[in-house]
Formats: sequence, structure tokens, C-alpha cells
Amino acid sequence: MINIGIIGCGTVGSTVINILDKNSSIIRKRVGCEINIKKVCDKDLSRIRESGLPEKCITDDYMSVLNDPEIDIVVELIGGKTLANDIVLNSIEKGKSVVTANKALISENWDKIFSAALSKKVLVYFEASVGAGIPVIQALHEGLAANRIQSIVGILNGTTNFILTKMTDENMSFEAALKTACKLGFAEADPSLDIDGSDAAQKLSILASISFGSHISVNKIYKEGISRVSPLDIKYARDKFGFVLKLLAIVKTEDKRIFAAVYPAFVSTEHPLSTVENEYNAVYINGDSVGDIMLYGKGAGGGSAASAVVADIIDLSRNIYYGTAGKFPYVLYDKRMKTKIQDISKMNSKYYIRFSTVDRPGVLSKISGILGKRHVSISSCFQEERQRGQSVPILMLTHLAKEGDVKRAIKEIDDLDIIKSKTVVLRIVE
Amino acid sequence: MINIGIIGCGTVGSTVINILDKNSSIIRKRVGCEINIKKVCDKDLSRIRESGLPEKCITDDYMSVLNDPEIDIVVELIGGKTLANDIVLNSIEKGKSVVTANKALISENWDKIFSAALSKKVLVYFEASVGAGIPVIQALHEGLAANRIQSIVGILNGTTNFILTKMTDENMSFEAALKTACKLGFAEADPSLDIDGSDAAQKLSILASISFGSHISVNKIYKEGISRVSPLDIKYARDKFGFVLKLLAIVKTEDKRIFAAVYPAFVSTEHPLSTVENEYNAVYINGDSVGDIMLYGKGAGGGSAASAVVADIIDLSRNIYYGTAGKFPYVLYDKRMKTKIQDISKMNSKYYIRFSTVDRPGVLSKISGILGKRHVSISSCFQEERQRGQSVPILMLTHLAKEGDVKRAIKEIDDLDIIKSKTVVLRIVE
Repeated sequence: MINIGIIGCGTVGSTVINILDKNSSIIRKRVGCEINIKKVCDKDLSRIRESGLPEKCITDDYMSVLNDPEIDIVVELIGGKTLANDIVLNSIEKGKSVVTANKALISENWDKIFSAALSKKVLVYFEASVGAGIPVIQALHEGLAANRIQSIVGILNGTTNFILTKMTDENMSFEAALKTACKLGFAEADPSLDIDGSDAAQKLSILASISFGSHISVNKIYKEGISRVSPLDIKYARDKFGFVLKLLAIVKTEDKRIFAAVYPAFVSTEHPLSTVENEYNAVYINGDSVGDIMLYGKGAGGGSAASAVVADIIDLSRNIYYGTAGKFPYVLYDKRMKTKIQDISKMNSKYYIRFSTVDRPGVLSKISGILGKRHVSISSCFQEERQRGQSVPILMLTHLAKEGDVKRAIKEIDDLDIIKSKTVVLRIVE
Repeated sequence: MINIGIIGCGTVGSTVINILDKNSSIIRKRVGCEINIKKVCDKDLSRIRESGLPEKCITDDYMSVLNDPEIDIVVELIGGKTLANDIVLNSIEKGKSVVTANKALISENWDKIFSAALSKKVLVYFEASVGAGIPVIQALHEGLAANRIQSIVGILNGTTNFILTKMTDENMSFEAALKTACKLGFAEADPSLDIDGSDAAQKLSILASISFGSHISVNKIYKEGISRVSPLDIKYARDKFGFVLKLLAIVKTEDKRIFAAVYPAFVSTEHPLSTVENEYNAVYINGDSVGDIMLYGKGAGGGSAASAVVADIIDLSRNIYYGTAGKFPYVLYDKRMKTKIQDISKMNSKYYIRFSTVDRPGVLSKISGILGKRHVSISSCFQEERQRGQSVPILMLTHLAKEGDVKRAIKEIDDLDIIKSKTVVLRIVE
């Protein structure tokens, strides 16, 4: 029998308890033995009582979980970084393996957690931290283990994907779509970490750290949120070019240089990522041998996250039961290894650019002259009819160009008196 | 050091050799030790020599691989069922673990192979047998282990998907699309096992056997191929209803009854499966906890298949190196367990039906009367303008209806003298 202790009994925690009960017969077959929930801790005891567990399993003192020598696996589901960090490091210190869904913790304390796990020969699993029940962390560790990962393009944040879907399908403004997301429960009370790309960057930090074998800190990841996106550009890009806007988390290699960034970008409606709508997540991976792979599913919600947590519990339990846990590390951690992330100004991309100009002869020539001088080459160009207030929108798509060149060119163009308002620049991902 | 012997050095075999060489540094980190290719066997020695391996590794006698006591893992890549069966069972008998990409072998000899593996405490891995490098078998075994699988809908055959994509995008006939597939190398010299659904059924047999914990033989799987599909129905269904036709391999539970079938069916253009085009494969899985998950990638080709074979070799090598191989079975095999597959006539589905009728009053009433009598309820109906030869196409979509009821109704309708040619019936998957 494997004993587990669960700390944090919110939606995910109570669903984990429910699955371990409901699917106990198939789980027993997969593990080889019983998984026993020895203790569940929450500061609100009534939340645990609802799960129907006997009183002796219920506690509001997390130290009683950590200090229980019979508990093999600690499942940390309280979120946050301070207390959760204590719980995880303390569990490792006591020789217990850990399952956590905590993306903030894992992405920030990668080095500390995995060097401790390595030295204590315990395992720390964290499948639910990215894409909830989508088995992407396992795929990177195992199913794609033969590959050098060349790029990952992820839709990793359900809130922003829901908002962008609404803006696309119903032509809503960002503010209206955010309001709808809050009302329907697809956004948290304070959605700022979703909107500004921080949540996606934490998840990208985890995927990138696995793929490149050393910690890629969230601070190294370039970040742009979606709050300034206009439904006008979403509509133009779809109608004129067949593009859909997504908040993408990207890590990719270009000639051995590695770039990592989160930003709103266009993908073609023919790209599988374009059908990932509303609260769904997806991870599009290119490996040097397998080519393109995509994993898709619900990136949040009790059922989906609990599916990943229980899969981790099953795998760990099997390893503990057969005495194989800690014989080899789950995460390849080598403190001497460092992965250098390049500045995004050196990255190549295609761009969608919308200029708002005065209606005067020579405007197009001036703009394209400056772009040309900066080595930004135009692949297509639409000039719309003049609109109210004399502002003429000019839409351009570029060939591959350097981010730094594009930024310098746009800055120079925006300083011209022919430009009526700040030029919109969005990247295109193929 | 883990020693492996590879039998069969075609495209996949030589790519495996290449990956093990090219990515040896990351693979060594993941395994903990070196993977050494001790022997490679092929009846055509020149194919092995091209890989640059030293002469002492090269043989055309597969028994010299099986009889080498230092070889830990036998990689069977010759395909077919007779010799491959001998090789796999003989390897197990000698206590060697096995990696195979052989879907025909695994789906047919499930019981024999996994009961032998269980009793000899060795592992047989077969990730490449379904969807090549897409890590779907691992996902079912591990990442989704907390779930009861409720349905799997797969696009598992690249050849037919390529043909249907051509028929959809370029309005080609089946014959013309098949010719193109052959010319571009997306169809084998004899593509009949692809076209008639046999290949997809073998792969479905494997996915279903894993999901339901006992062998679901390919003979139990209902099968319809794509050779009779007309571009007319593909066009009608897309233009009128927003549907795309795919050859789907489906296993699903309805009130504890399990159905398994391969047939061409329509999916909505909003469904993620609709973007799976050309030679790509995808598996859409519903688990009771995780909800919907999709895994997507190239279902064939040396690189993709070799990615899966090498992932299997890595996982097995690690297990052998740390002495954990065979401590627990990879496939849950219990010979007492049987999964009953229901006759498809009891399955519920929605349908697309195209009648070709004479242009006479009362036709629609007669048809809908017979459908109604058989409890087949119509959700929408289009009657086209009369075409050459007086034949009038009537298109109908149904609500959920029993396959048996639909078949009986259509048989009765096709016997009427108002019907000009055999009615077309295709299922719709949601």
C-alpha cells in the first residue's frame, strides 16, 4: 500500500480524492497495489469533510502530513510560492516524493527543487503545471526523448485564449471579452497575470527547461500581453490574409541560438493551432526526428488538472511500490549547464503591420523606403479606402525580418508627420 | 552499457541507427548509460553498410542476434507476421525485451505476446505501431492512466487521409486521388489494406486493447473503406453543412456497451480533427476526468516512426540499466478478462443521407414516412434542383438514430421505384 498526503483541498484536490475513489479498481491494476489517502490538509476543514473521508484523515496542520513517516508521496495543491515552497522542499528533505500542480513554484525554484530531489533521490512530478491534463511534460521527457526539440509553440493560457476567441468570433473589444470571461468563470478575479502573459511565460519556462536540460528562468522570457490588441487587426488579418490571433508562448532555436517569448501572434487558419478555441490549450512541438507534433486539451479545470495529478500519483506509486523511485531522476538536472537565451531583437519573424497614415501622395513610397533601408522586405500590401478623419490604413505583411530591424524602422516611420497614430506590429508564426 | 540488436534495416531501421548516433549525448543523459548497437541484421547487407557501422556489427542471420547473450533489447523492424512473430516470441523466451513497430503482429498476437512477456518478466514496447512518433500509446498507459477512456476517434491511416484531403481540396475522384498518392509516395504499391480500413482497424485494435484492458481483436471491428466515396457527397456536405470527410477509427462506450468501427464519416470544420490533413494522423480521446484530448503528428515516415522506436529503446534501456525492467508489466494483461464488442447495428449515430429520386410529387413524404416509422428523425433536409436524367438529389441529416434502424429504413426506401440509384449513407461524428 502506498500512502499519500494531500495538502490543499480546493477544486483540484477534491477531484483528485474523487478520482482515486471512483477509478480505484483500474488504478490498483496499473500500480500493482492500493493507493491510500492517509491525510488531507486544508485550512478550511469543511472542504475536506465534503469529500466524505473519515475524520482521522482530516487535518488543518500541514506539518502533520510532512511529519507522518508512513506518507510516501506529498501532493501539494495550495498554489502560491512561499508556503508551497516550504512544503515541497521539506517533503524532499524528509525523503518523500512530491506531486505538484504549481507552475509558479516550479518555474521559479527549478534549480533548488531538482537539485534537492537529485541529492535526496526522490522524484518531483508536475504534469498538471502546464496544460493541466494534457500529457505534455511526459511527452517531452519520454515520448519525444529521441529528439532534439527545435521549437515549441504553445497556447498555454485559457483565459486569454477565451478572450481572443470572443474578439475573433464576435468582434468584441478586449474589455468586453474580458468582462464575458470573468462572468463565465474563465478568468480569475485578478486576471492581470493571464492578460500580460506572465502565466504563459511560467509554463513556457517549464517546457523550455525540460527541453533544453537546464533552467530557463521566466525573467529571460520576452513578454507582451493582449490588452492592447484591437478587434480591427483581428478582423483585417482574418479577412485579408486568413489569419487567427493567438497568445503564443514560443521557444525556438535559430542556428543554435535560442529565443523564448510570449506574445500575441497570427497563425494561418490552416494551422492546427488555429482550431484551438476558448479555454482549450495546445502545444505544438517540432523535434528533429519526429517533425511536428501537437497535443491538445483543456488547459484548466478540476477534472483536467486532477487527471494529471492522479497520473503522476500512479506513476510515482508504481515506482515506490517496486522500489525503483529515485533510481533515476525525472528531470535531468545539471547545475553546471546553462542555456543562453538570446535577445529577441535578433530573432527572425514575419510581421503584420498596420500603418495609419494621412491621405497624401508619396506615403507608401516613404514607408517602404524606410523598411527597405532596414532590410525589411514586404510580401504583400493592402491600402484601404480612406476612413473618417482622413486616416488611411495601410496593411503590410513582411518576409522574414529581424525584430530589431523592424522595431527601428517602425520607430523611424512613427516619427514622420504622415503617420496619424501609432503603428500596429504583430508577429506571424508559421 | 545496454546492448541492442536491430533486425530489419530499411528506412525506419537506418533512421534509428542515425538518431542513436546523432543524439547520443542527450540520449546518454536520459538513460544514464551508453546504448550500444551490438548487431544489425538485414537480408540485404549493403543496406546496413550504408549506415557506416563496423563490419562486426553486420549480419544477415537473425538467429545470431537472438542467440547473443549480451543483447538486452531486440528491435524488430522487418514487418509481416510470420518471421516477425518468431523473432518477437523467441526474444521474449530468451529473456530479452523487445521494441517493435509491427501493428499487424501486435494487434493479432496480443494475447500470445503479452502473456509470454508477463511470464518471462520482460517488456514489449510498440509505440511506433500506431501514429508513428505520436506518443499515443504512452499517453494511454501513463498520462491518461487516471481516466476511464470513454471514446477514441482516430485518423490513423495517412494514405486514406491524403486521398480524402485531395478529394476535398481539389474535388478529385477517388481513383485520381489514389493515383496522386501513389505517385507522391503516400501510398504503397498495394494500397488495398489502407483503402479498405484494415490498417486503421489494426491500429484501433491496439488502442482499444490498451484502453479496455483486454484484447479487442481486429475481427471484432466493423470496417468500411473509402473506395466508394464520391466527391459529390464531400462537396455537398461541406457546402451545405460545413462538414469534412475523414476515415475514422472509433471505439466508444454507450451505456456500458462498447462499439469499435472504422468508416468514412463527417466531422464539423470546427472540430480539431478537421484540420488533420494529408499524411498527418491524430487521435482524439475522451477520458472521464480529463475530457477531450487530441494528439496530432505525422503518422508515417522514417523520422517519425524512428522517433517512437528510439523513445521505446531509451525507456527500456533505462529500466534495464537500473534493474527495474519487468518489475511491472507495460501492458495490463489478464487472460480472464474479455471485452465484449457490440454489433454496430445497436450503435447510435447521426447520419448524412443522400437520396437520388425521381421528380414526382409525394417523394419526400414517402421517404420521411419510412424513416419516421423506423424512429429515424430528420434534423435538416435540402432538396436540390433537378439534374440531368431527371434524378433529384435529396440531402438529409438525422438526429441520433440506431444504425440498424437506419439500414432497414434505407433498404426499404431503396426498393421503392421513386429511387433512381442506391442511397448514400455516411455517419457524422461530433
